[in-house]
Amino acid sequence: MRARIVSSEQVYEGRAVSLRRELVELPSGKRFYREIVVHSGASAVIPITPSGKIVFVKQYRRPIGEYILEIPAGTLRPGEDPEACARRELEEETGYAADELIHLITIYPCPGYSSERLHIYLARGLRRGAQSLEIDEDLSVVELGLEEALDAIRRSEIRDAKTITAILYYYNFVTKC
Amino acid sequence: MRARIVSSEQVYEGRAVSLRRELVELPSGKRFYREIVVHSGASAVIPITPSGKIVFVKQYRRPIGEYILEIPAGTLRPGEDPEACARRELEEETGYAADELIHLITIYPCPGYSSERLHIYLARGLRRGAQSLEIDEDLSVVELGLEEALDAIRRSEIRDAKTITAILYYYNFVTKC
Repeated sequence: MRARIVSSEQVYEGRAVSLRRELVELPSGKRFYREIVVHSGASAVIPITPSGKIVFVKQYRRPIGEYILEIPAGTLRPGEDPEACARRELEEETGYAADELIHLITIYPCPGYSSERLHIYLARGLRRGAQSLEIDEDLSVVELGLEEALDAIRRSEIRDAKTITAILYYYNFVTKC
Repeated sequence: MRARIVSSEQVYEGRAVSLRRELVELPSGKRFYREIVVHSGASAVIPITPSGKIVFVKQYRRPIGEYILEIPAGTLRPGEDPEACARRELEEETGYAADELIHLITIYPCPGYSSERLHIYLARGLRRGAQSLEIDEDLSVVELGLEEALDAIRRSEIRDAKTITAILYYYNFVTKC
């Protein structure tokens, strides 16, 4: 049996995420509060160059206090189509435009506390576009071969969930088909 | 060059997550606010039964409004060791105790806005322990063979990031070694 939502209120509205607090009642009558991060969704791209390299961005992530390697990604703008967002983030962050975008999978990064849905695309047919970083992005572009990327995952040098998911999905379900 | 943190304040303190708001100044002098979800960290377990099945839990996740398939996981209690948390969540959620826990990888589910670090363990040598669900958990246990689990990922029936990461890491870097 599912819990009943007694009340639900937005306790904070932010630039990228908002916070909702719900009072929940169990079938037993017991009540507790639960927080939900309300997120507008995001897109990520695994970009494959004509020579078969994967394009990454390395950037400082304040929430975890580290520079990490990730595939290009970003939050959906209001009303933005996930594929358009993937194309935009790819070009803004790496300077690559893509002839072909293929949807691979849509994942939930933290279904226990965040509403975020993240759409992962494969980008092929890359050509030079224009890099134009957003104001809070301080990043560099890194290209790795698939074997190098797999090794980096195995050795815990790549630790971002969407990046690991995208590379292993691509490796197991695209390159082997 | 990295942005400078002008001020940082906790705007909400919740049961499982808190929210921090930072005023950031770029080298150009431009300022903006950024929100950070402060999370205490979590552990997840990919449990392998003696017959080689993977043990999942299916539960309703309010933030995304769906019942989804996940590996057992939960938030670290204050001061709790990640491996102890993994053992506790495994037994509470599935009723299995494990003779052997092996750390596979530690990932960042959403490094763009959350401080969460999630530790993934492989659990082998399973035997019957005691299932004891937490008050807000409404879940059922599901066991799938590795091939079935891989198929479920390929067909987007498994969409939880930690679960996809754990299964594909196990498949590519443990079963093939």
